[in-house]
Amino acid sequence: MTSQLILDKVSAIFSEQLPFHRHLGLKVVRYDTEGVEVAIDMADHLIGNVHQQILHGGVTATLLDVTGGLTAFAGVVAREVDPGIELLQQKLPKLGTIDLRVDYLRPGRGQRFIATGTIIRTGNKVAVCRMELHNEEGSHIAFGTGTYLVG
Amino acid sequence: MTSQLILDKVSAIFSEQLPFHRHLGLKVVRYDTEGVEVAIDMADHLIGNVHQQILHGGVTATLLDVTGGLTAFAGVVAREVDPGIELLQQKLPKLGTIDLRVDYLRPGRGQRFIATGTIIRTGNKVAVCRMELHNEEGSHIAFGTGTYLVG
Amino acid sequence: MTSQLILDKVSAIFSEQLPFHRHLGLKVVRYDTEGVEVAIDMADHLIGNVHQQILHGGVTATLLDVTGGLTAFAGVVAREVDPGIELLQQKLPKLGTIDLRVDYLRPGRGQRFIATGTIIRTGNKVAVCRMELHNEEGSHIAFGTGTYLVG
Amino acid sequence: MTSQLILDKVSAIFSEQLPFHRHLGLKVVRYDTEGVEVAIDMADHLIGNVHQQILHGGVTATLLDVTGGLTAFAGVVAREVDPGIELLQQKLPKLGTIDLRVDYLRPGRGQRFIATGTIIRTGNKVAVCRMELHNEEGSHIAFGTGTYLVG
Repeated sequence: MTSQLILDKVSAIFSEQLPFHRHLGLKVVRYDTEGVEVAIDMADHLIGNVHQQILHGGVTATLLDVTGGLTAFAGVVAREVDPGIELLQQKLPKLGTIDLRVDYLRPGRGQRFIATGTIIRTGNKVAVCRMELHNEEGSHIAFGTGTYLVG
Repeated sequence: MTSQLILDKVSAIFSEQLPFHRHLGLKVVRYDTEGVEVAIDMADHLIGNVHQQILHGGVTATLLDVTGGLTAFAGVVAREVDPGIELLQQKLPKLGTIDLRVDYLRPGRGQRFIATGTIIRTGNKVAVCRMELHNEEGSHIAFGTGTYLVG
Repeated sequence: MTSQLILDKVSAIFSEQLPFHRHLGLKVVRYDTEGVEVAIDMADHLIGNVHQQILHGGVTATLLDVTGGLTAFAGVVAREVDPGIELLQQKLPKLGTIDLRVDYLRPGRGQRFIATGTIIRTGNKVAVCRMELHNEEGSHIAFGTGTYLVG
Repeated sequence: MTSQLILDKVSAIFSEQLPFHRHLGLKVVRYDTEGVEVAIDMADHLIGNVHQQILHGGVTATLLDVTGGLTAFAGVVAREVDPGIELLQQKLPKLGTIDLRVDYLRPGRGQRFIATGTIIRTGNKVAVCRMELHNEEGSHIAFGTGTYLVG
């Protein structure tokens, strides 16, 4: 089994099976060994400020946390010489956020929000990732830093 | 106008008018000069892990962030000698999260989750709050620390 | 070997052998299964603001980080049924800070600063601790939250 | 008075007058509108681990915090149409760290450590900066994120 097949399965689980992701409309739009992208289209139910029509900060935190978790798990898969389907059964359920910091840079205005992530510390127990959220025009909405339990 | 009337109005806005709060089912169940409580009842759409039926980490982050913001705003109201309705029009729209840290302590299992907050640094520009999330049995799910722009 | 003997040895290493601790004048003044206290006496070389004679924020961060590490290691010792001297050789060198958050509450004025810590999440790989810094009059200077690799 | 003259004065104060910086040997080696660099040469008194000869995590936190503060203040100067010497008397004393997060990526080994910073959120009250620490070979030791009060 290739790494990409494993990432495709995780991507499908995160986009289609997780109830909270479906409730929000969050989608994993890219997930390969080179990068992760998680996106959400602006919708009435995501608004946190009626006057200003901006994204709720909890949606921002959710997008960054999910993206960090996927980034950390991609690191787990990349560390395996011969990755197999058992990673989904043994490692994915152990994946968990230890802590998350979100820096809100500007109000979440836009039609579509895209989160991306990078691993900054990797190990067989803990990974640390940095994440960013931009809107469809490339305006930078938020930064995130997350520490994840990976094994 | 008393401080409590202002807090009651904010509480109503947060529970009934904010689209994202209604979409999740989040309610401000207490809001006075002594404390804040924000609660959510467990529901299928809040689940972040199908096998384990636990609360999504993004819901935890949302509850803590909302609670921190309310805690910071209660501090703004408490600083006013003669608080008036203009606080809602002038100060509430300026309330914003600068940064948020969430420490996830244990899986979010339970029937109901309650977030509470305390101010740890107060000023006329910035407030820092600490928040906690417990389930209905008092099990401690998460800690939060947030820095808020208040003026 | 009792847990207390191990903690005493760690305390001696931290107070007397670590060059940076000696350079600052930092001392572990209490270290048992009930708690940790790390203290420093105000001195000219610790000042970060010439006009106001206040403690440099880097000293605050140092005190909180050291206290968090000691708190996490006390948790490691407490988890052992029959703790032995090998903990010092095998576990202590593996102790490391993954991330640290410091919340500065008020200027570091005082004659003596005392840091204390509590474990909020414990495991066989990672521990999360909360720390506080007070001056000799009990004025609360700073909060800290640290995530530590413990195994 | 030009912005650069103001930054030069701040640089001199930070390198030569602040007691804690002199005690450690910390120097501002670059400070202009394009960037900040704070450096320290490895020395026995900065060691936090006798066996491994690595930089104490408190030194890392100090370097990142100082660099973030300087980065935030450069932002203050850059916002002024006609910056004058009064910035040093009125704005510099108000500069303070609200919170700091440090992510320790790898052990602090090296001969010289250099911290750099970037503003990610700017305003007339609060600035948020990201900082990095590298050794002389370009190895990435730590990341930092700090929120600063600037007015």
